[in-house]
Parts: sequence; C-alpha cells; structure tokens
Amino acid sequence: MINKLCVIGIGLIGGSLARALKEAEYVGHVIAVGRNVAHLERAVELGVADSFDTSIANAVADADVIIVAVPVGAMKAVFTELSGSVKPDAVITDVGSVKGNVVCDARTALDDRLSCFVPGHPIAGTEKSGVEASFAELYQGQRVILTPLEETSAIATQTITKMWHIAGADVQSLSVEHHDEVLAATSHLPHALAYTLVDTLAQMHEHREIFQFAAGGFKDFTRIASSDPQMWHDICLNNRDALLDMLNRFSNDINKLTKAIEDEDSEFILKLFKRAKTARDQNC
Amino acid sequence: MINKLCVIGIGLIGGSLARALKEAEYVGHVIAVGRNVAHLERAVELGVADSFDTSIANAVADADVIIVAVPVGAMKAVFTELSGSVKPDAVITDVGSVKGNVVCDARTALDDRLSCFVPGHPIAGTEKSGVEASFAELYQGQRVILTPLEETSAIATQTITKMWHIAGADVQSLSVEHHDEVLAATSHLPHALAYTLVDTLAQMHEHREIFQFAAGGFKDFTRIASSDPQMWHDICLNNRDALLDMLNRFSNDINKLTKAIEDEDSEFILKLFKRAKTARDQNC
Repeated sequence: MINKLCVIGIGLIGGSLARALKEAEYVGHVIAVGRNVAHLERAVELGVADSFDTSIANAVADADVIIVAVPVGAMKAVFTELSGSVKPDAVITDVGSVKGNVVCDARTALDDRLSCFVPGHPIAGTEKSGVEASFAELYQGQRVILTPLEETSAIATQTITKMWHIAGADVQSLSVEHHDEVLAATSHLPHALAYTLVDTLAQMHEHREIFQFAAGGFKDFTRIASSDPQMWHDICLNNRDALLDMLNRFSNDINKLTKAIEDEDSEFILKLFKRAKTARDQNC
Repeated sequence: MINKLCVIGIGLIGGSLARALKEAEYVGHVIAVGRNVAHLERAVELGVADSFDTSIANAVADADVIIVAVPVGAMKAVFTELSGSVKPDAVITDVGSVKGNVVCDARTALDDRLSCFVPGHPIAGTEKSGVEASFAELYQGQRVILTPLEETSAIATQTITKMWHIAGADVQSLSVEHHDEVLAATSHLPHALAYTLVDTLAQMHEHREIFQFAAGGFKDFTRIASSDPQMWHDICLNNRDALLDMLNRFSNDINKLTKAIEDEDSEFILKLFKRAKTARDQNC
C-alpha cells in the first residue's frame, strides 16, 4: 500500500497508473503535479488524482512514491527540483522510453537520493496522449522494464516492482544499455519510419487524394505517427546512438530490397518476405 | 442478379465477394476454380461456392460474370485460358492490386474479349489469406477502384459496379496509371517497409528477445508483414516503376531525418513529426 503517490506529469501513462492503483485500493492519496492548472483540475475532476500542486517541491514533500512521467527531455529539471524536497525513504521512478540519458540526468540531479531511484519503462501506451485518454486497464498483461542501478536499494526496486504488479503488469529487469538497444529496434525505429512515411506522402501535392485511398493496413501502419511529436523528438535525441544504429541497419536493408526490385531479383524479394512473415507470425 | 458467377482463385478476396453476393441473394450459382482440390472442396463445405472445377475452360463456359482473383503474376495465364471459352456476353473482372501490368496482360491474352473486361481493385483485405479467412462483410463501406479501358463496354462496367455496390462497397474510377501511383504510395511502399523492418530485426541475433519487448504499436506497424509473400512479391515486380519512385522518395526523407538526428537538429525533427501527426490525424 502506498500512502501518498505523487505523479509528476499526469497524462496517458501517469494517469493510467494512478487509475489502476486507485481501482486496486493500493494508494491512499494521489497528488498530480504539472504546470497547466486546467489540465491538473481535469485530472482531479476525472478522479485520476485527489489533489494537485504546481510546485514540485511542495508536492513531493510528504510523498512515499514519486512517478516522473514527463517527456524524456524534461526529466533533468524535474529531478533537480525534487531532489532537495523528497522524504529520506521516498522511492522515485520514471516512465521514460529511454533509460541511458535519464539515468545520466538522475546521476547529476538526484545526487545522494540516487539509491531511491528505480529507472522504469512501461511498454504500453496508445497513440493518444493526455489524462483524458488514461484508463486503468492500460497495463494489464503488458511489460514494464526496470533498469535498477548498482546504487539502487533493493527495497526501492521491490516497492516499484510491487506497484507495477498491482497495476497488472509483468515486470522484467534489463541493463540500461540493453533496454535502449532493444527499444530502438522495436519502438523508436518504427516511430521514425511511420512519421517519415506519412510526411513523404503528405508532401506529394495530391496527398488528400492519396490518403483517401488508404485502407486498413495503412491506418494500422501509421497509427503511431499520431503520437505526441515533442515526446518522440525527445526520445530520438535521447537515444540517438542506438536509434542511428537501427536507422543505418534499416536503410541498408531497404536499399538492398530497392536494388532487388530494380533488378527484378525474384528470389531475393520472395526470400525476404517469407523470412519476415515467419518472424512476425512466430513472434507477435 | 448474376445467374452464374465464376471465381478463379477463391481466397480471402474472391471468397468474401462470393459470400457477400450470396448473402444478398444476388447470385444464383457460384463455381470456384483453382488447382488445389482440397482447397476447392473446403470452399464448397464452407458454403462460399456451390460447385468447383479445376478446368478454367469448363468453369467459365456458362458463367455470366468471371472474377479473376489470383496473384497478379498468375493473371496472364488465366486470361489466356479463359479467353477462348467465355460466353460472348460474359463480363470479366479482376481484383489485382496493380492495374498497369494486369491490363497489359489482358490486352495480350483476352484479345477480342477485351471489351468485356473491367479491371478492378477492392481496397480491402486483412493480413490473412485463404478461403477460411473470408467473410461477407469485408467490403462493407470499403472502396473498390475500377480502371475501365477505352475498349471496355459501358454495360460491362455497370455490371461490375452494381456487383460491388451489392457487396457493400463504394465504387470509384481512376485511370490505370493514377491507380498504380496512388497504391504504390499507400499500400505497396508500406508493405515493403514493414517486411524490411521485421527482417532487419529478425537478423539481429537476439531477435527473439527483441520481439518479446515489442508492444501494441509494433504489432500494428508490422501487421501487414504477415501478408502473403508470393502475392506481395508479384505486386512489387508488377508495379516496379511506381514503387521504385516511392522507395526513392522515402529513402531521401529517411536519410534527411537520420542526418537531423545525427546533427541533433531539434527544429527539423519536431517540424517533421508535427507535420506527420497533423496529416495523419486529418486524413485517417
């Protein structure tokens, strides 16, 4: 049971976690923190939070668990602001899609509170954003990756693991580096491709007509291009090296397919499509 | 009302059309044609067809409407086989995802029956294939593009338009060239990207683990990579020029994004993601 939970950045991710913990009666009080008062009021109206504050220092003062759910690029400022005000036994976690840079920021900003920090990443979400889009079942059966540091205390990791279990998630540990490589492949690269594809088409002057003939396959393929641009901008720059590695691998492979289509190399094309179909059918 | 409908290649697309027309009682008898007897027997068992034949010439002899629903690369042989046996007033259509090469094949193979041929393409489908995956509602509210030729008789076009209306589809006409350009953008390029992405990941030696951390966004993004490899091989080679043009446009754009990430060019990245989100939200 968490007596007081502080959610900094109460959107889809933080809001859905608060809802799940409330529904399970695993939390006494949820305080939401942010800069936009109308947004915070809406979180209280929706019953996602019990109260709100625009001051991080005030809000975290008596919180037992603090969730930092802001875009990755805004984490450092939040860590700096909260580090002087948290209770000694409070546990801090984040939900950032990148772990390397977030951990770097935490090392700089959290200082002697680093042992209370459990870096985390729920592998869940939709293309929607904002507290209005939050729902208690978001994490049911989904994975949460924790990347505890050498300095992270065992009890802090246990607290966050238990919290995610209560929210319905399956919790796994990875190293920071491995997390960032795996997510560059399965999430950051696909987002870069989806945004680019939609933009490529939108640049063609008859694009309204083009989109008009798009079927269900296109809609599924480009759904992630409706995701929050600022959030994904932050992710791309904060997982730069791993994402560039994946972009290079992909570009190499798409160039090979392009050449095979130019050369009408049936064998190459058919083999590639068959391998891909097998991999997807087996793994998804 | 169609007295006798002949479906050559009774899979997801041909099977769903037969089901829809039967449900609407718009067809008297459906005969399925193919090479695989077990598959044809299954179509009859499922009630999708009333009878079957492995000989195209026999099956088309007294058919009023003939649907050619085989992979694009197999169309020419089918046209050649049926051209000598169709009734003078029979109407022939196809469901190929590419129209340029199919029309070329029809011009060569259908000979003096060309006026009875209405090239068509239902913009519908799922990543599944085969008659087992067919369902009567597949075309409800979906688009069907017809690309009638100069030689196509008005009555043949009317017959096929009416048939698709009965199946629940919204029918539109495009020129052959325009169809192939638009579909290269919204369908053929996304398939090439999805197959390549899955294959890029599958080549990484820890790929089982990579796929394990894939979330809903990845599953949606790669769904089309579960499509039939032979069918998509045929489409890529039969719409080669338009697809190569789109692959080049996309590669240019993904290279620009890659460079912007290398250079940490925030403005470029954010603008691109915002444009893409706006285009997708407005058009899908």
